[in-house]
Amino acid sequence: MILDRIQNPDDVKKLNEEDLPVLAGEIRSFMVDHVAETGGHLAPSLGVVELVLAMCRVFDFPRDRVIFDVGHQSYAYKILTGRRERFADLRRFGGLSGFPKREESVYDAFNTGHSSTSISAALGLAVARDLKGEDYKIISVIGDGALTGGMAYEALNNAGSRREDLIVILNDNQMSISKNVGAMANYLAKARTAPHYDRRKQHLKKVLSRTGGGARVLSGMRRVRDSLKNLMVQGMFFEEMGFTYLGPIDGHDLPQIEQYLQYCRNVKGPVLLHVLTKKGKGYPFAEQEPDRFHGISAFDPKTGKTKNGGGRSFSTVFGETLIDLAKEDPRILAVTAAMPDGTGLNPFAKMFPDRFFDVGIAEAHAVTYCAGLAENGMKPCAAIYSSFLQRGTDQIFHDVALQNLPVVFAVDRAGVVGEDGETHQGIFDIALLRAFPNLTLLSPSTEKEMKQMFPYAFSLDSPVALRYPRGKVSEWDRDFEHEPLSDGRGEIVKKGKGVVLIALGIMMDNALAAAEILKQKGIEAGVCNPRFASPLNIDFYKELAEEYDTFVTVEDHVLAGGFGSALRELMAAAKRDIPVVSLGYDVGMVPQGKREELLARYGLSAEKIAERVAEIESKS
Amino acid sequence: MILDRIQNPDDVKKLNEEDLPVLAGEIRSFMVDHVAETGGHLAPSLGVVELVLAMCRVFDFPRDRVIFDVGHQSYAYKILTGRRERFADLRRFGGLSGFPKREESVYDAFNTGHSSTSISAALGLAVARDLKGEDYKIISVIGDGALTGGMAYEALNNAGSRREDLIVILNDNQMSISKNVGAMANYLAKARTAPHYDRRKQHLKKVLSRTGGGARVLSGMRRVRDSLKNLMVQGMFFEEMGFTYLGPIDGHDLPQIEQYLQYCRNVKGPVLLHVLTKKGKGYPFAEQEPDRFHGISAFDPKTGKTKNGGGRSFSTVFGETLIDLAKEDPRILAVTAAMPDGTGLNPFAKMFPDRFFDVGIAEAHAVTYCAGLAENGMKPCAAIYSSFLQRGTDQIFHDVALQNLPVVFAVDRAGVVGEDGETHQGIFDIALLRAFPNLTLLSPSTEKEMKQMFPYAFSLDSPVALRYPRGKVSEWDRDFEHEPLSDGRGEIVKKGKGVVLIALGIMMDNALAAAEILKQKGIEAGVCNPRFASPLNIDFYKELAEEYDTFVTVEDHVLAGGFGSALRELMAAAKRDIPVVSLGYDVGMVPQGKREELLARYGLSAEKIAERVAEIESKS
Repeated sequence: MILDRIQNPDDVKKLNEEDLPVLAGEIRSFMVDHVAETGGHLAPSLGVVELVLAMCRVFDFPRDRVIFDVGHQSYAYKILTGRRERFADLRRFGGLSGFPKREESVYDAFNTGHSSTSISAALGLAVARDLKGEDYKIISVIGDGALTGGMAYEALNNAGSRREDLIVILNDNQMSISKNVGAMANYLAKARTAPHYDRRKQHLKKVLSRTGGGARVLSGMRRVRDSLKNLMVQGMFFEEMGFTYLGPIDGHDLPQIEQYLQYCRNVKGPVLLHVLTKKGKGYPFAEQEPDRFHGISAFDPKTGKTKNGGGRSFSTVFGETLIDLAKEDPRILAVTAAMPDGTGLNPFAKMFPDRFFDVGIAEAHAVTYCAGLAENGMKPCAAIYSSFLQRGTDQIFHDVALQNLPVVFAVDRAGVVGEDGETHQGIFDIALLRAFPNLTLLSPSTEKEMKQMFPYAFSLDSPVALRYPRGKVSEWDRDFEHEPLSDGRGEIVKKGKGVVLIALGIMMDNALAAAEILKQKGIEAGVCNPRFASPLNIDFYKELAEEYDTFVTVEDHVLAGGFGSALRELMAAAKRDIPVVSLGYDVGMVPQGKREELLARYGLSAEKIAERVAEIESKS
Repeated sequence: MILDRIQNPDDVKKLNEEDLPVLAGEIRSFMVDHVAETGGHLAPSLGVVELVLAMCRVFDFPRDRVIFDVGHQSYAYKILTGRRERFADLRRFGGLSGFPKREESVYDAFNTGHSSTSISAALGLAVARDLKGEDYKIISVIGDGALTGGMAYEALNNAGSRREDLIVILNDNQMSISKNVGAMANYLAKARTAPHYDRRKQHLKKVLSRTGGGARVLSGMRRVRDSLKNLMVQGMFFEEMGFTYLGPIDGHDLPQIEQYLQYCRNVKGPVLLHVLTKKGKGYPFAEQEPDRFHGISAFDPKTGKTKNGGGRSFSTVFGETLIDLAKEDPRILAVTAAMPDGTGLNPFAKMFPDRFFDVGIAEAHAVTYCAGLAENGMKPCAAIYSSFLQRGTDQIFHDVALQNLPVVFAVDRAGVVGEDGETHQGIFDIALLRAFPNLTLLSPSTEKEMKQMFPYAFSLDSPVALRYPRGKVSEWDRDFEHEPLSDGRGEIVKKGKGVVLIALGIMMDNALAAAEILKQKGIEAGVCNPRFASPLNIDFYKELAEEYDTFVTVEDHVLAGGFGSALRELMAAAKRDIPVVSLGYDVGMVPQGKREELLARYGLSAEKIAERVAEIESKS
């Protein structure tokens, strides 16, 4: 194995050209084998193996610094920068992160996770470098999907008007997680097939071969560029934004990438190199289904099949529920920000193609677009993961809540999501949303509740957010009949005395299990399903306070400003003193790990909840 | 007066062409006279008088629907749509809003206030229109400044790949509030002066005159456009984004605008008309100083001079403080999102041009750009208004707080800002920020405190936000010596017994005055300056709870998740029961009005605070 000899990028530089394709193959096998065990972001990382190898040969890492946008495509880079042996613990608690992490390696320049941040960060690094009078290269590697995010444009707009050296590598695989959308995607498609593609390449090749690359070709290239500019369409967008545009080139042709990267090293000012890659490259199952292999759980590398965990996910139930509702009401529409699959909307998209909208990785736009739809009589549902909805915070306030427009937010992946770690934990939505006016915040925990709450949400003529976690719906209510939803009222699921557990959404499962454990210890804790995170019905909770002497709130959310805090505010405003003990995350940074493992570590497993209640009861 | 005869846009349609320039002049005089009394956004509205007149003649409002991005330029439209007589109460409590408001008039299609939302909303209206099978025009009027916001690009990207009819009018006055920045601004400048400008205009004129305007010219125009495309630079950006591009045209040439708008009515799919206007047009003082007249307080229309209210603003003191610190530490940098004047950074920009960065109306990018600067050894300070910082919520979490990077946020306009109303009230920042890890949140109330808190903020090797309001610094601490800042500790300013007022930031003023009022009633309330909104020092507040029996928090912020809520969480976690009564906004929607008036209405004036405390004391 060549790979066994690679400890850092310098070792890659020492290889013969013939060894490189072999190494690329070894890296791909390594990734497939390991991700088959741990799960992870396979297809994006498979697509950039040659690009990463070329970067390691051309640049001087970690002196030169690279930022991988989103970070899903960083595995090859991790493998080549001394972290190969840690892949057995990829995405596990205490193990290797699935994203770039400064804490993990000096080779990682900036942490990523959410989309479209890399050009902003890279410009910051570059400006700081120049202010300090230092000399090295700063590179952003950004996908065509991430380029649909407005933040990337804000950064291009800023960088393109400045003169700092900055290399942006556009990793164009025609995909976000699913197929990329929007005018930029169309534009890039045109650039890929433009008739002048070859002519330009020939020009560049000629210039490069004539001069042997390097700074000397610069003025020549500028002339080439200028003379071609009037004849060419591709690259114009980026040229207009102030970048020198190069490409598109084949992202699996290693010598060509190296040649172009060498050239990029010497371009003055911001330069964008357009590289065409194939998502999932080299692993046939991933090439065929790059969206399924984008982020995948453990699978059989021989068949490409994942093990079905059994049970129905919240996302699936949501998708089905929305279809049922949309059949009855033609005003119901579905909007996603590049997540048709993850949010469970693919079946909806197939059934109602004209009522389904994928707006790209553009949460801010998605929210205000929904506000516009709602203003003109529609009932849009925006399905967005909790941590990504943070991108639309201002728009939810300014365009939806203030105008009291009936937009329904399906806030998927609310609570800890597990292996993706701290950037992706959806533990802030209650704190962010409940301060805004007119907005109702619900949390379903089971299929029955979802099917009750979504119709209720659409029946209100005001904004509603429904938060639910990654994973399977609970079935705690098989033998329970829910009350009709009404104005912030919860429901008593289990009567008790002394302490009542008030457990939001999916936390009902562990709260009920905790009550069973407590029963065996002779403690009869009540269990209340609050259903609403906002507003909270004062009469309901006053009555509850008559029957119990301590409230224990349980939420899959940060404690600061969360559900427990809301309940404490309510009781204080009502001048009804009752101790409210809140269980949740005491800090807004929950690391990666299995979801169940994290719940236990942060005191939210049935056992930990029971322990805490027993402690309270022993003191009262 | 022609203006007296105008009740709605139909009346504008009936006018002779000769009457229009006269009417334009009357509208400008009307605006100058009224804004001189009430204050308001004068220069943007002066710039679009002809554009609005032309729109009123060409479109059929309110059937056709227009969205004014930001809304600063909507006065002429308000005047012409039946709201002329309400201008005496512009921006006053219960009076006419300075922004478009659906609640105010059927002519307002969508509320605005924050930048860059109009294309998203307009696309929503357009898609809903087509789904309903309705037939009318949707127009977005967006400035070149608002086009630096990434959300506008997200919307262009989405709209440009769809086929709905949608008219975007680019109101290009080369300004945000101050001079516009970035590559797009450079690009537009090039478009304005491109050699083919006239040629294209000639072509269009020829086609238009030949056919008399309307749908018949469409195919002709498409040919003209395509034949010119390879020769022309301007418009290419928008054409690449899937829009038909027209212009640029003179935004003060009424017949020409009408002609182009007529043409736009009949273009299929998304079209962008590039209109060149002069901010402040027709009022010499505003033409000379369009930034000062962007949003201006009451002034003398004869001299253009505003009355100086006396006292030093928080923004001014901040700007000076930052200069002093920057002189000592070359790592300190200043970043603004198109607000160099409003944030008080103009003197800094003059003194340290290489250390000052205006990134455009791009708060999300601004935050992550600062994270990049900080990662590479700098100490950036991002000065952003509280309500606009909502645009960077996710980036503060994801790029700054999670990575624990030393970015200092100068959160100006925190608390109610007054006349701009609900979109601009900065009343959510504590709730949004305190849930994030590693972040310290301070609130200075006086010049002395600012000069103590900013050095402290830069001395921490972690993110810090400092929130302070619009208006003048307090001087309550003239004879008070502040304690050193330390780890969430507040300071006792006035000893008392029973109740202690814990008043965050500028609320110290009214809390101290309330204590005086209470003293006359024989109530000796204590007053504590908490200084930190997060973290809160448990020992400090436990000690405080030993000396008093009730905490009354006072904050210029929404109660949900605010400072009072944080203190209640702290005491609950410490199992130290003490009643915490919170004074602040009980709903996240505070209307326009004078700041003092709003504070009184929401129970935050000295008198109201005193009343509330007296009530508490009478019951205890």
